[in-house]
Amino acid sequence: MAHELKMSIEELEAFIDSEFPQVHHGGRSFAVEAVRPMGATVRLFYHDRHLRPGGTVSGPAMMSIADYAMYIAILAQLGPVALAVTTNLSINFLRKPEQADLIADCSLLKLGKRLAVAEVSLRSDGCEDVVAHVVGTYSIPPR
Amino acid sequence: MAHELKMSIEELEAFIDSEFPQVHHGGRSFAVEAVRPMGATVRLFYHDRHLRPGGTVSGPAMMSIADYAMYIAILAQLGPVALAVTTNLSINFLRKPEQADLIADCSLLKLGKRLAVAEVSLRSDGCEDVVAHVVGTYSIPPR
Amino acid sequence: MAHELKMSIEELEAFIDSEFPQVHHGGRSFAVEAVRPMGATVRLFYHDRHLRPGGTVSGPAMMSIADYAMYIAILAQLGPVALAVTTNLSINFLRKPEQADLIADCSLLKLGKRLAVAEVSLRSDGCEDVVAHVVGTYSIPPR
Amino acid sequence: MAHELKMSIEELEAFIDSEFPQVHHGGRSFAVEAVRPMGATVRLFYHDRHLRPGGTVSGPAMMSIADYAMYIAILAQLGPVALAVTTNLSINFLRKPEQADLIADCSLLKLGKRLAVAEVSLRSDGCEDVVAHVVGTYSIPPR
Repeated sequence: MAHELKMSIEELEAFIDSEFPQVHHGGRSFAVEAVRPMGATVRLFYHDRHLRPGGTVSGPAMMSIADYAMYIAILAQLGPVALAVTTNLSINFLRKPEQADLIADCSLLKLGKRLAVAEVSLRSDGCEDVVAHVVGTYSIPPR
Repeated sequence: MAHELKMSIEELEAFIDSEFPQVHHGGRSFAVEAVRPMGATVRLFYHDRHLRPGGTVSGPAMMSIADYAMYIAILAQLGPVALAVTTNLSINFLRKPEQADLIADCSLLKLGKRLAVAEVSLRSDGCEDVVAHVVGTYSIPPR
Repeated sequence: MAHELKMSIEELEAFIDSEFPQVHHGGRSFAVEAVRPMGATVRLFYHDRHLRPGGTVSGPAMMSIADYAMYIAILAQLGPVALAVTTNLSINFLRKPEQADLIADCSLLKLGKRLAVAEVSLRSDGCEDVVAHVVGTYSIPPR
Repeated sequence: MAHELKMSIEELEAFIDSEFPQVHHGGRSFAVEAVRPMGATVRLFYHDRHLRPGGTVSGPAMMSIADYAMYIAILAQLGPVALAVTTNLSINFLRKPEQADLIADCSLLKLGKRLAVAEVSLRSDGCEDVVAHVVGTYSIPPR
């Protein structure tokens, strides 16, 4: 199979801005860093104050960035599929993140007709240790 | 075993306000509705705008309220244990929530010396259907 | 909605015997105890030696009985759907089981057109404590 | 940190044979293929009839081999810790396995004083596709 991507970083960000402006509610928090066959890398800006009450990136913010990375990886592979929805997300919190941007690396483990399964590793920018690990499932609408 | 609770609703809310004011960052979002042996019920206010970008309660907000319900149930049982931390959280999204408060019912499945495991059912206020179901694990610090 | 069940205990067991005789490989291990709207109760016989190496019911045997309970609950609700398959299963091991039969109580949290999500509590026969807790997802084939 | 392993393949297999002979109940099913810093590779023999009722490797057998791979990776790192126990295991079934041995590659994501978290990818021998993906948690006894 030729793993040609259906959307570029620019197209992905334009699609999100147009279809899901609420992602950027309260300030632009996420940026797509890279897309590749069956994967994507996304950045969560540390400067976004409402994602780090208490000084460190919050659990729900980690879940958000992981979910976003999965959605971007699916979109890049399938093209605009606005109705794909998360059905399950399981997160293990491994270490306290640094006071830095968070980088989410997503790999699609399966991209079937009805379900996509992905794993995401979250790291503080510049660090090797995995801060949190996520596995999630998306339901893909019939096309 | 006598399941006497170590903290009342008022004591729980005072403890959170003092130790974790960041929970209420951006507006008071959560209220403890009830505590009982090995369980708690918590409410997420729908009026809190930053928890519902797009008009519906967001996935991360559901995760937050579930995590909060687990923490409250553990505190009520053990007394103030500020250092208990979530190690795993797995959420299944089942239905789109209503435009209403979200009610989180938590039951502790196990409260061991080192680990607590809990399940949480989320429902829109006034509805019977479970909107999301969460299972989570807390690590309990040595005492 | 009238929650009329599509299959009785006898029909469920006959269907399994005919379509999935491998379930009983090595001796009849499981029995359907009860079916009800959106739920089922299943028993794993302790006498089945190959499910309890080391004297206690093994983790994989707990997973098997939980998976079986979910499948029975789905079948009772939908009628014979041989092709429903487990896509995710998450198990928390809470306590060491007794040297006794294991009882699995399953509740369907959602039974959609494409996905079913269920939770299962496992208890040693005659005990109240939950030994293991399972949440699983089945993919339902198009009908 | 120098990631020196505490046990060789031979020592690991001798430890399992002596402490957990029940792993090999019904025939020797598993072999340790490799150990490395924070990881291990384990093989499940397809010829083991009782792991593949119905002709394909069963879900519980996949869970067993994944759990075994995690335990081996922990032992190699910590030395003999007979009392480490699985507290959570979450498995996503992605593809039907081939009629072949199953290879389980485990990476430890965290090895703390009290908890280890690992992920495991299962592949049919000779194939690249991941058949099932597992994330699990072990509780490590105080030392």
